[in-house]
Amino acid sequence: MTGTENESKVTYEELAELEKDFDDVDVQLLKQQYKLSKPLYEKRQALVSQIPHFWSSVLEMAPQEIDQFIQPSDSNLFANALKSISIDRFEIDDPNGSPRSFAMTFEFEPNEHFEDRVLEKKFWFRRAEENWTGLISEPVKINWKDGGDLTNGITDAAVAYWEVRKQKGDAAKDSKEAEKLSDLLEECNAESVSFFTLFSFVSSRKYITAEESAEANAAEAERRAKRAKGEKAEDPADKIENYDQGLEVHPSGEELATVIAEDLWPSAIRYFTSAQEAEHLEFDDSDMEIEEIDEESEDEEDARVNLQKLGEELKKGRSERDGPPSKKRKA
Amino acid sequence: MTGTENESKVTYEELAELEKDFDDVDVQLLKQQYKLSKPLYEKRQALVSQIPHFWSSVLEMAPQEIDQFIQPSDSNLFANALKSISIDRFEIDDPNGSPRSFAMTFEFEPNEHFEDRVLEKKFWFRRAEENWTGLISEPVKINWKDGGDLTNGITDAAVAYWEVRKQKGDAAKDSKEAEKLSDLLEECNAESVSFFTLFSFVSSRKYITAEESAEANAAEAERRAKRAKGEKAEDPADKIENYDQGLEVHPSGEELATVIAEDLWPSAIRYFTSAQEAEHLEFDDSDMEIEEIDEESEDEEDARVNLQKLGEELKKGRSERDGPPSKKRKA
Repeated sequence: MTGTENESKVTYEELAELEKDFDDVDVQLLKQQYKLSKPLYEKRQALVSQIPHFWSSVLEMAPQEIDQFIQPSDSNLFANALKSISIDRFEIDDPNGSPRSFAMTFEFEPNEHFEDRVLEKKFWFRRAEENWTGLISEPVKINWKDGGDLTNGITDAAVAYWEVRKQKGDAAKDSKEAEKLSDLLEECNAESVSFFTLFSFVSSRKYITAEESAEANAAEAERRAKRAKGEKAEDPADKIENYDQGLEVHPSGEELATVIAEDLWPSAIRYFTSAQEAEHLEFDDSDMEIEEIDEESEDEEDARVNLQKLGEELKKGRSERDGPPSKKRKA
Repeated sequence: MTGTENESKVTYEELAELEKDFDDVDVQLLKQQYKLSKPLYEKRQALVSQIPHFWSSVLEMAPQEIDQFIQPSDSNLFANALKSISIDRFEIDDPNGSPRSFAMTFEFEPNEHFEDRVLEKKFWFRRAEENWTGLISEPVKINWKDGGDLTNGITDAAVAYWEVRKQKGDAAKDSKEAEKLSDLLEECNAESVSFFTLFSFVSSRKYITAEESAEANAAEAERRAKRAKGEKAEDPADKIENYDQGLEVHPSGEELATVIAEDLWPSAIRYFTSAQEAEHLEFDDSDMEIEEIDEESEDEEDARVNLQKLGEELKKGRSERDGPPSKKRKA
């Protein structure tokens, strides 16, 4: 079909503007979805807080995009101490913010690894000068206990570098904090790095301040308004800047956080059910464990049967929830 | 974590009911999405109808879930004759229907394979007695020309069996039409079967009439109302019935149609752009084709440059459209 597009009278601006209109609809729907679902998420939290290990079971069944970043030591910590996960779209009603920004909160029981009971990471959806859009964040301090740090000092080094960066800007690249962080990142095996390095994620582009984003949004709005009137409005030139070369702790942080917010979080009950099913299968395979069942009281057996039945119930309805309105937009 | 669920006081009904509430929200959002996007889809159709081979380019870049069902001969036919694809949620405002039902329409130029200029396939979202929900459909007649049938008689046999089935019900399984269809399906290599067999899809369960579905919906609504009042309401017993054993032409038809409606259709511009990019890369690799470019007029070159720029533009904004409101619910 080489060359056939030459016959076309449609310009790229027309198709690109149309994609932006589709995008506006997506933002509107995200808002509505969040508002309609909020009471249900609250109800869910109230229910699942009574189920021990709910969230660690959910993480056990997480899809590959998440699972590949969870090491066995992370998994142990989740199983022993993870109390809850929650997603809050904190800019949902902020005309200068975006419904795509979200805070991801992990709540923990006291544990041997860190002092914190809550780890909260905020992701802001921002626009850059050259029209790049995406999530940016700031490194979160984790107060590791002696010998408890699962990241081998990476999260601490990321926070230290961030502090210097805030003062010195781009010049921070030559600081000893930059060198320290860079050394730690070179040392570590990217494939066995802890999930908790996600808390150090900054951006897959250079950091964008709220002010820079507001300016870029205003400029983009102006271009779109001009085009809507049929006037010419050139897009800014391409010049995507990466985050400080070699100093982004988690290059896949944006994707990982997005899958947590858009898949793991909304589908948590279903993942939990898969975990229950998998566990039930293990039961059936082991004589020893079947013996244990015999010793359980009737009440206990009822509870398990109930949860097994949940699996069947949810499987039956699965085709419904797999369905719309998920417009998968990955081309 | 074996056995921890025994401590839980949450019953499966509570979690399953909550999933149904989430599902209600999904349906509401699907309606809103469809209504907000409808004018944009119409605008898109007006634009892309001016771009030759738009839809066949989209199909060339289709995700694996679709691509695996497109044979080289299907691909040729699409490239030569496919004019448009469209999705219409024809029960969107029908209180007895579902916004999840849709019609998939392929429009063709005159071609050597079949007489039809339009192939329309309707998928109805229905509920069965035992609470199974999903898409069901009816075989669509394709008027193949002599020697043009890409399905080796399967679509014709499926329609013939369907006619007998409408008269005789389950007894149709013993008809000669059933035998013919069954023989054809056994003969063919499932992996090289034409995309057009999708038009013969009926259901991954036994067919459900509109009346049966309405009854099942009413029964389910009654159970939910009871549970909402705190009363007990047992779900119907499991007894999922498969479609006439061995006579479903396209066992993956529901998934395939769903990916077309929820991914290919909404993301068509993006898939088209990927096709343009892929084509541009081929250009750069071939001296011969570069020579051809030199002979083109300036206008033609502009058009290609524009479409290339579109690729960059869309890539830049990609993170936006990849984002919400897609709640991926595949656990």
